[in-house]
Amino acid sequence: MTVVALSGGVGGAKLALGLQDILPPGELVVVANTGDDFEHLGLHIAPDIDSVFYALAGLNDTERGWGRAGETWQCMQALGGLGGETWFNLGDQDLALHLERTRRLRSGESLSEVTAALCDAAGIATHILPMSETPVPTIVHTAGGDLAFQHYFVRDRCEPVVTGFTHKDAERAQMPAALLALQDVEAVIVCPSNPFISIAPILAVPGMSDWLKSLGAPVVAVSPLIGGQAVKGPTAKMFGELGMDVTNAGLVAQYAGLLDGLVLDHADGEDVHDLTVATAVTGTLMQSAEDRHRVAELALNLAEAIKEHME
Amino acid sequence: MTVVALSGGVGGAKLALGLQDILPPGELVVVANTGDDFEHLGLHIAPDIDSVFYALAGLNDTERGWGRAGETWQCMQALGGLGGETWFNLGDQDLALHLERTRRLRSGESLSEVTAALCDAAGIATHILPMSETPVPTIVHTAGGDLAFQHYFVRDRCEPVVTGFTHKDAERAQMPAALLALQDVEAVIVCPSNPFISIAPILAVPGMSDWLKSLGAPVVAVSPLIGGQAVKGPTAKMFGELGMDVTNAGLVAQYAGLLDGLVLDHADGEDVHDLTVATAVTGTLMQSAEDRHRVAELALNLAEAIKEHME
Repeated sequence: MTVVALSGGVGGAKLALGLQDILPPGELVVVANTGDDFEHLGLHIAPDIDSVFYALAGLNDTERGWGRAGETWQCMQALGGLGGETWFNLGDQDLALHLERTRRLRSGESLSEVTAALCDAAGIATHILPMSETPVPTIVHTAGGDLAFQHYFVRDRCEPVVTGFTHKDAERAQMPAALLALQDVEAVIVCPSNPFISIAPILAVPGMSDWLKSLGAPVVAVSPLIGGQAVKGPTAKMFGELGMDVTNAGLVAQYAGLLDGLVLDHADGEDVHDLTVATAVTGTLMQSAEDRHRVAELALNLAEAIKEHME
Repeated sequence: MTVVALSGGVGGAKLALGLQDILPPGELVVVANTGDDFEHLGLHIAPDIDSVFYALAGLNDTERGWGRAGETWQCMQALGGLGGETWFNLGDQDLALHLERTRRLRSGESLSEVTAALCDAAGIATHILPMSETPVPTIVHTAGGDLAFQHYFVRDRCEPVVTGFTHKDAERAQMPAALLALQDVEAVIVCPSNPFISIAPILAVPGMSDWLKSLGAPVVAVSPLIGGQAVKGPTAKMFGELGMDVTNAGLVAQYAGLLDGLVLDHADGEDVHDLTVATAVTGTLMQSAEDRHRVAELALNLAEAIKEHME
């Protein structure tokens, strides 16, 4: 049996780790957003794949909340001294991942193959797959003009007012063959990632939504909202800027018919009355392993209940 | 006035630093060997340019003898954990130089332009120029077959018996325009680098030897031999493997009519009787700034004396 999780970066990776912990080894497949990917300093950087990779390998820095534990910044400091670009901070250990990925991509491996090789090397039984083998860069439309994703996200700290998004080159994107080959998918879990910049790019890959629906497996999201706010990042701000209510009904509408169920936080318990999908309520803030396991378990249980109801 | 120094890596860089210290700022031009250059992990690595750069910027590690002071190795350690290649050890700070060089080369700058920009950023008034804008990789012929330079030098630790060298693609190499544009060159100093793998590649660039001779400036080498041995590296071993006497007469013969003068060590003082070029004898081991200044000064004085004799 297989569980497919759709994930963005750090927030999604927490649930992915919870799912990995409670599922038998190798049964989890994480489809990571690559809309944030960009070429920087000649390196292919895939922030969401990396966040999932570090979390699932137990290498992530849980205090800082991103990147590798025990990270150092010698290279960036030296780069600054040489007049290089330092607005996107890359740790010394983190650089190794970008160097090795870039080297493998240049030698002709696909992004899926590279990611699989790195997971093997790190001893990760979970399969991490990019949403697409080719780049589908998210372009952020703002009041002040279009921005490359990392210019919006990191350089400009999500400050510009967002008016919409384009998933560039999505029309020529291809789902990884390893994803299409999956059998016996029992549940699809949409991680508590930003719906606009983490999950929407995945769903923009041609065939992805249809494939998810064709699996005959319940699709259950864990809401990224807690009390009408996001735990971290610009999710709530974007709802507002895009003229949407920052509610779980807004979230379900954003996922346009994809969801069969939603796990939401106690703080938003009242939202269940406005929802047309099956729901389960718990504390969705994932700070401990117990939190991650509880949320992951509840999402899988909700999927199972929906599945029984389907049959 | 201008002094041109031909240099390989660490040993040559010591004399280059001595020359920089005693000459007015900006009067020294160092032509660095790029026969050691290679592409590794997708990065353009130029070990001799880097050794000269770090020495002249005061960033070099004088205890370890190569690379940057205060260097750390987090990236390489992480790379090993990801199954990457770690036989060529790149420090975290050092990586910044390779990343920035590679980024600039890919953006269309020439190796000369990149090197000049990095020297500017590091506040180096000396002009460091590559011997060629395009790669001229040294191929090491050994009893066991041909080896790429860094495979011979680093991976195989200079252990294979050398039978000769090829300077690949030398026929299409071009001297940097900034070198050809130099005026009023008062001396050419051949640093105490390995004659076969550091200086010969420079002289293999089409036009280089003729240009040096056309300057009308004395060419003075500082011998890399002390008591018939090299301070460091495979120089003496190579003389033997190539069937040559490890003597300063052998060195002058190797430079085939290029030299007008030679600075050699007290330990080899007897060699002067076998030499057909002007000589000066001192302690050539450069461990302190005083050593470097004394050797640099003596080389320049010998050049000046030769020049007076020429006129």
